[in-house]
Amino acid sequence: MTEYKVVELGALDTWDEFEGPLGRGKRFAEFELETKYMGMSSNAADPGKSAPWWHFHSQEEELYIFLSGKGQMGLNDEVVDVEAGTTVRVSPGTWSTWRCLPDSPEQLRFIVMRAGGGDLPRVGHDATMDKERPLPWA
Amino acid sequence: MTEYKVVELGALDTWDEFEGPLGRGKRFAEFELETKYMGMSSNAADPGKSAPWWHFHSQEEELYIFLSGKGQMGLNDEVVDVEAGTTVRVSPGTWSTWRCLPDSPEQLRFIVMRAGGGDLPRVGHDATMDKERPLPWA
Repeated sequence: MTEYKVVELGALDTWDEFEGPLGRGKRFAEFELETKYMGMSSNAADPGKSAPWWHFHSQEEELYIFLSGKGQMGLNDEVVDVEAGTTVRVSPGTWSTWRCLPDSPEQLRFIVMRAGGGDLPRVGHDATMDKERPLPWA
Repeated sequence: MTEYKVVELGALDTWDEFEGPLGRGKRFAEFELETKYMGMSSNAADPGKSAPWWHFHSQEEELYIFLSGKGQMGLNDEVVDVEAGTTVRVSPGTWSTWRCLPDSPEQLRFIVMRAGGGDLPRVGHDATMDKERPLPWA
């Protein structure tokens, strides 16, 4: 573990250019940053795009920090409007999903942080998906 | 602990309006978000402004996510240029400080995240400051 590490994610309006294993616009920067306790992804989604499924984490707390565009989050049985500056803490065990509104004036760009009571689990090792549950705006 | 909590920080160009105990433009949103494992502050600094001192954390890892403006971070004996998209992992025990360049075209706006191997320490309870050490651009 080095004392620090610098990663250039690029200006926000270039975040959608990143091609990762989970598709375009989603970058799990934690691998490049070599973090020990925190997970971080940068996200950019076109109007009308949504997360492909609901998920929750068993141990990890998540923080969604929205930076541009207009969208919604599904949080258990509720739907919350989000825009630049909306920040949402999602506790372990809470189902969540998100979408960029079809008429959003720009891409929904946001950061997702993850941390729990110990070393950071690897991406996917603390997540439960429900690929059958209808998305709340379907 | 509720299942989730939503806090409106406002659009990035309003972050400097927040008046907190550490001055204008620095908002420890973790209290409003009621996070358990992660600390978060939103930050906006005018051109020429710098952090008032160096500091390091004993247990917590920090992540600086720069969103606008041009600045620099001091990291132990090095100085790193930062701009929108620059993300810096700072490991425990690493001295750091920051400034917005005097000729930055806009405010330096950034998020600072903190997490460690357990519940989040309260702000200040894991930090060591050196108020005598000259800032690297002094």
